[in-house]
Amino acid sequence: MAVKRVRLRDLVERFGGELVGDPDTEIERVATLRNAGPADLSFLANPKYRSELAATRAAAVVIPPAERDATGLPRILAHDSYLHFAKIVAFLNPGAPSIAGIHPTAVVAADARVAPDACIGPHCTVGQGAVIGAGVALGPGCHVGDEASIGDGSRLAARVTVHARCIVGARAVVHSGAVIGADGFGFARDGERWFKIPQIGRVVIGDDVEIGANTTIDRGALDDTVIENDVKLDNQIQVGHNCRIGAHTAIAGCVGIAGSTSIGRNCMIGGAAMISGHLSIADGSVISGGTLIAKSIAKPGHYTGVYPFEENRSWTRNAVWVRNLDALAARVRRLERDGDSAEESS
Amino acid sequence: MAVKRVRLRDLVERFGGELVGDPDTEIERVATLRNAGPADLSFLANPKYRSELAATRAAAVVIPPAERDATGLPRILAHDSYLHFAKIVAFLNPGAPSIAGIHPTAVVAADARVAPDACIGPHCTVGQGAVIGAGVALGPGCHVGDEASIGDGSRLAARVTVHARCIVGARAVVHSGAVIGADGFGFARDGERWFKIPQIGRVVIGDDVEIGANTTIDRGALDDTVIENDVKLDNQIQVGHNCRIGAHTAIAGCVGIAGSTSIGRNCMIGGAAMISGHLSIADGSVISGGTLIAKSIAKPGHYTGVYPFEENRSWTRNAVWVRNLDALAARVRRLERDGDSAEESS
Amino acid sequence: MAVKRVRLRDLVERFGGELVGDPDTEIERVATLRNAGPADLSFLANPKYRSELAATRAAAVVIPPAERDATGLPRILAHDSYLHFAKIVAFLNPGAPSIAGIHPTAVVAADARVAPDACIGPHCTVGQGAVIGAGVALGPGCHVGDEASIGDGSRLAARVTVHARCIVGARAVVHSGAVIGADGFGFARDGERWFKIPQIGRVVIGDDVEIGANTTIDRGALDDTVIENDVKLDNQIQVGHNCRIGAHTAIAGCVGIAGSTSIGRNCMIGGAAMISGHLSIADGSVISGGTLIAKSIAKPGHYTGVYPFEENRSWTRNAVWVRNLDALAARVRRLERDGDSAEESS
Repeated sequence: MAVKRVRLRDLVERFGGELVGDPDTEIERVATLRNAGPADLSFLANPKYRSELAATRAAAVVIPPAERDATGLPRILAHDSYLHFAKIVAFLNPGAPSIAGIHPTAVVAADARVAPDACIGPHCTVGQGAVIGAGVALGPGCHVGDEASIGDGSRLAARVTVHARCIVGARAVVHSGAVIGADGFGFARDGERWFKIPQIGRVVIGDDVEIGANTTIDRGALDDTVIENDVKLDNQIQVGHNCRIGAHTAIAGCVGIAGSTSIGRNCMIGGAAMISGHLSIADGSVISGGTLIAKSIAKPGHYTGVYPFEENRSWTRNAVWVRNLDALAARVRRLERDGDSAEESS
Repeated sequence: MAVKRVRLRDLVERFGGELVGDPDTEIERVATLRNAGPADLSFLANPKYRSELAATRAAAVVIPPAERDATGLPRILAHDSYLHFAKIVAFLNPGAPSIAGIHPTAVVAADARVAPDACIGPHCTVGQGAVIGAGVALGPGCHVGDEASIGDGSRLAARVTVHARCIVGARAVVHSGAVIGADGFGFARDGERWFKIPQIGRVVIGDDVEIGANTTIDRGALDDTVIENDVKLDNQIQVGHNCRIGAHTAIAGCVGIAGSTSIGRNCMIGGAAMISGHLSIADGSVISGGTLIAKSIAKPGHYTGVYPFEENRSWTRNAVWVRNLDALAARVRRLERDGDSAEESS
Repeated sequence: MAVKRVRLRDLVERFGGELVGDPDTEIERVATLRNAGPADLSFLANPKYRSELAATRAAAVVIPPAERDATGLPRILAHDSYLHFAKIVAFLNPGAPSIAGIHPTAVVAADARVAPDACIGPHCTVGQGAVIGAGVALGPGCHVGDEASIGDGSRLAARVTVHARCIVGARAVVHSGAVIGADGFGFARDGERWFKIPQIGRVVIGDDVEIGANTTIDRGALDDTVIENDVKLDNQIQVGHNCRIGAHTAIAGCVGIAGSTSIGRNCMIGGAAMISGHLSIADGSVISGGTLIAKSIAKPGHYTGVYPFEENRSWTRNAVWVRNLDALAARVRRLERDGDSAEESS
């Protein structure tokens, strides 16, 4: 972890915000309120942690203006204190620089175009006609297939696979174990057997996309699978062939998206949600974790379908009625009819 | 992407079907109806895309006989137009040939038996006594453990792991990140601690099996885990130790199958379904995506257990009753009893 | 698979238990009751397999004292027959020894500290300042990042990634494709765009932990992600940033745990369960497979929330009522009110 020493006055000069307290307060690191020590900057975004603000040993804090009087510590007041703090964290922790050049153990095709300042790590393979942009860093053991391309400034962690002809845009962050461009799951029945449909589309990924560890994005069958700009995918997500994910959409871990589904822009999808194939999800939709979406969503909104958990014993008693709801409803209908006829006859 | 130029008459000669229109129409590529250009062959399988057929700019199409008059384009009529088209796609896109030989960066045990025409990619490791069959291609960074064997014609993409003593049959396609033969999850309680049960079984995989990216198949505890011929597994599937999956069964992405479960032949399992351990699923069963199967299925059929999604606000209102169904049913029963006694007393 | 030949008398001397039958009975291997042959030792733990005990061709068996008369075979009586048998299996199958030394294809930083008896496999990378403890074995293609450390006696299978500064304790078993220390999923809204929150915490893993194939454990945002001693994680599990998992907890495959959740000690979590973020789960909790936990659990118990599966046709009929439960309950309430007023008026 890089350590710099900065004064609060420098941070305010660079990032804005209102400074309250000694402008020469020095900080070296960032930390949570609970674990901060006397050289740490911390932050409060959610008022429910105000008691931790009171107790923190931090040198200084970034807080919303509304919390101005909630602490006597040197403090930076910022409207979006979380974003403000995040920018300072990024400034203080710029990440290890990668060293330009191709590691001697890497295997790079003669006709691959590798930018002079790109870093190709140990045991990487870069295929024929592949393009590695300026400032790109490939961690150990990455594979970039024939004619694939990695945009300027992108960083691939160890053991990332980008298959032939797939395109990754600029400033991507791709985590270990991600597989971009494996074959989509396409088979046609041929009597009792399956006939494999060749998957000849690509994966085309825009700029500023993050792809989590062990996430898989399949190549299209005929057309491409498309991930638009600024999409953020967490770990262990599966994106089927010919999906499209709209710009700025964020998807949490363990989500599965079946083939040919189109997800709009600015959507938020909770962990372990599952989206069936051939659907269309409206821009700005929010889907709760664990929800299975089996129909298209035309109207943006917040959608949920989760079985509420309870103690196993009571779940057993209640769940049996889930399989008898239609019969139960029929009994209610019958009671209503009986009531009506009783009323009529009375 | 390989490009050939073929005439329709050649395709009909090779694959059958009835040709309507100019037999000398030339095609170079395949594409969807929507994206096809004047050198492309396209297809219609589902009548709901008939409007796209009308609008396509394709050179020619493969369609079912019933759609004979739905277009004026040169066309091949075939009963199973999807399969027919798939075979043409495969013919036109034979895949990049792999170059026989062991890459100098690969580490191959002296006593491993590698077929002369096999391709062992960069940074692969092949263990002692392992067998690599004729025409096999291992992508970069694959690991084949001691005494494991890969059948003739199989292709492993980059970074596939096949652990010691596991067997992969002929013509397998295994995608990147797949792990075959990791230890099953077996521990015995030893006081407060866990004692690891050695996992000494194998994974035994038949012929013509496809295994998706980042899918994991654990080795058996004592007996083997078995995947029969022509099984198709999508990405990110987990198969526990000592499972058996019957021939021709197809399983979509993100499915989990707990240990010692046996799935029949010709089953279809939807994405993100979960099958508990020690179960038996009948041949020909169809399981909907997202369904948790917690009991054996003796009778083939189509099984589902999915919480229907809705807007979060109405979900909140409805879901509270799921945890009160037994009480609600008791109230209905009481109303029925009251009605009965009212009738008796009237 | 190692083969030794041992006599029952030797096993009882070493592991205890009461021997009934010829103490000179020799066994070479272990097997299930069903597949055992005349050189195999087998076991019975669950009385429901008693018929297999009667039919087995094993040389000898380990059984509970209560089953003493259920077989005439030479037998070892042990109270916890499963654990007893497991210890014998481990004794007979000690695992292939790893060969000390750094493979010539591995890339190890000059200042990494690698124990002389550690085994660094082909194509591994070990970063600057990393520490590899005594007796550690890294399989082919592992990556240990800068300043990361792997405790004594730990074994990493092929293609495991441990990112910079993460700590793995002693005697860990980490399976292929696991990724420890990828960035947590943290972004702040910055207008329409996402701003990446640097993830500068670590993953800190205790002793005797097992981590399954393709499981991912993210590094903390500011504080660490912590996995305590003797935790057992199956395959394809996702652990979000800043989670803590208590000692001796076992988690089955495909489970997802969102960020900042704390799971107690001695918990058991079934496959494909999902735990939301920022929760606290009590020590000793048991969570059924497929259950989504969206609220903290203060009281240990067995919790379930699973939609019961049924034939698709009846599911369709019943599920429609799930989205109308509130209305159905209102109808019951109305009937009850009508009944009350009828009673009053009668």
